[in-house]
Amino acid sequence: MTVLIVGTLGLDTIETPFGLKKDILGGSAVHAAMAASFYSQAAIVGVVGADFPTEHLALLKERGIDVSGIEVGKGETFRWSGYYEYDMNQAHTRDTRLNVYNTFDPKVPDKLKKAEYVFLANLDPQLQLKVIKQLDSPKLIAMDTMDFWINNKREALREVIKQVDFLLLNDGEARQFMETPNIPLAAARLRQLGAKSVIIKKGEHGALLFDQGGRHFSAPSYPQEMLRDPTGAGDSFAGGFIGYLARTQDVSSANIRRAIVVGSVMASFNVEDFSLDRMKRLTPQEIGRRFDEFRGFAEFGALNIKL
Amino acid sequence: MTVLIVGTLGLDTIETPFGLKKDILGGSAVHAAMAASFYSQAAIVGVVGADFPTEHLALLKERGIDVSGIEVGKGETFRWSGYYEYDMNQAHTRDTRLNVYNTFDPKVPDKLKKAEYVFLANLDPQLQLKVIKQLDSPKLIAMDTMDFWINNKREALREVIKQVDFLLLNDGEARQFMETPNIPLAAARLRQLGAKSVIIKKGEHGALLFDQGGRHFSAPSYPQEMLRDPTGAGDSFAGGFIGYLARTQDVSSANIRRAIVVGSVMASFNVEDFSLDRMKRLTPQEIGRRFDEFRGFAEFGALNIKL
Repeated sequence: MTVLIVGTLGLDTIETPFGLKKDILGGSAVHAAMAASFYSQAAIVGVVGADFPTEHLALLKERGIDVSGIEVGKGETFRWSGYYEYDMNQAHTRDTRLNVYNTFDPKVPDKLKKAEYVFLANLDPQLQLKVIKQLDSPKLIAMDTMDFWINNKREALREVIKQVDFLLLNDGEARQFMETPNIPLAAARLRQLGAKSVIIKKGEHGALLFDQGGRHFSAPSYPQEMLRDPTGAGDSFAGGFIGYLARTQDVSSANIRRAIVVGSVMASFNVEDFSLDRMKRLTPQEIGRRFDEFRGFAEFGALNIKL
Repeated sequence: MTVLIVGTLGLDTIETPFGLKKDILGGSAVHAAMAASFYSQAAIVGVVGADFPTEHLALLKERGIDVSGIEVGKGETFRWSGYYEYDMNQAHTRDTRLNVYNTFDPKVPDKLKKAEYVFLANLDPQLQLKVIKQLDSPKLIAMDTMDFWINNKREALREVIKQVDFLLLNDGEARQFMETPNIPLAAARLRQLGAKSVIIKKGEHGALLFDQGGRHFSAPSYPQEMLRDPTGAGDSFAGGFIGYLARTQDVSSANIRRAIVVGSVMASFNVEDFSLDRMKRLTPQEIGRRFDEFRGFAEFGALNIKL
């Protein structure tokens, strides 16, 4: 089952306490598709400039990713430059150059219009809407967004939210958007806007699900000591999440929880090195072992006393 | 099985978005003993001034709490005044008056010296050491501390840490003390200082255990929309934790995890109202139901695909 992923392909310049890397492969669609590719065929809709190294496309193809929806636009590839200080939970942007994304008009190739599992990665919500309109009969749409769109394209953003099954947001953005410091309250309000379910990504603190029935799931945090570059953590989470759902064709409450843990597993690997460096050498065996570790972190039994 | 709790009894003046309450019953030993009393007999060692209302002692006695170790000192009762802003995760101190705790010299009554389960609530580490010296044969000692002692009594604090089974700290304090933003790394360093196990309290994000074997447990967070006053959350967590261990007489890895969830349950109730107001009307049935809710928040099954 193919997962359609719409988002950015870019060249990142990133500084963390572990080094400075220039013009490395990045972008929301790239990180998401890489993670999804361990479970399903991923297909990217996005745009690159003529300066985008073909070796990056070759790497995506190697993972079985369908790159037919990647246009080569006039101009330069999207670039993001940022740094993380000592406390790597917070990204600081030095420079964002939309370049070819300034005039990006997403066109879903005909054969991908029937995609049932769709992830709209962080992108202008007006473009996210354009993508939704091109889909034949999506079964499950997940979306991400960020503070920039919350501040500058609020109305379009609300329109997209009404049409998605899963809204993924980090905790800070959820609080800001819904104007409350209380995460459960922010999630409840986001669901009132029309998102069927809300997933709050909390970085080192794990992830929370507030689902259709208002039920709550708290995915365990991973005790990550080997955090080299957090860039793409949220996108690899989303990619693992939707890739697993597409693979299993099971959107039951229980399986959605597993998919969230799969997403957490993929994010935990992604942050262990820059760009896709860790994901490139990741094996299914490692994924299985880490999923089992997550299970071990979360297990506790019933009360063994009579209250 | 009696749980010995050493800490403060005080009168708090607290302002939150839900109101201003003056001179209400508070203190670390009070919140901890109240939570523990649902599982075991709690006994408090501490000191109050002559101005401490006897109705508060009556309330403790009603819960079966042994108050024989509570001295009446010369001077006024310990007082803390603070406020919480819109984001209630952070307490702001307006005023701390140690009063009778300025000259407090903890004396464990003879019959309590044989206590096997001991919680040293937040207090001058030199006093915590004095208490440990008076114990006959403690089976399990848990301790809490705060930034004030980390900054001002670091050597004494390190001495106590060497002697405890469980060090409880909030995440900000752990990072500050061990000089790293990485929580798992901070916990590893705290264990190197000699604490057998470390529990990191993360407020709305739940709690983490790094145990003797270096194993990790991530307790689910509770989606608390009814947060009226966070004061005492950490102490009620600790009280529930140690009260449950004393009741079950089981310090297996599996039971320690349950005890952490019991602590989380007690904290989740404590913050629903000021002082002990919620705990006073709490029933065993409510505790059981909330524990089951926590189980529901954390459950997810094994992967159902072959990787």
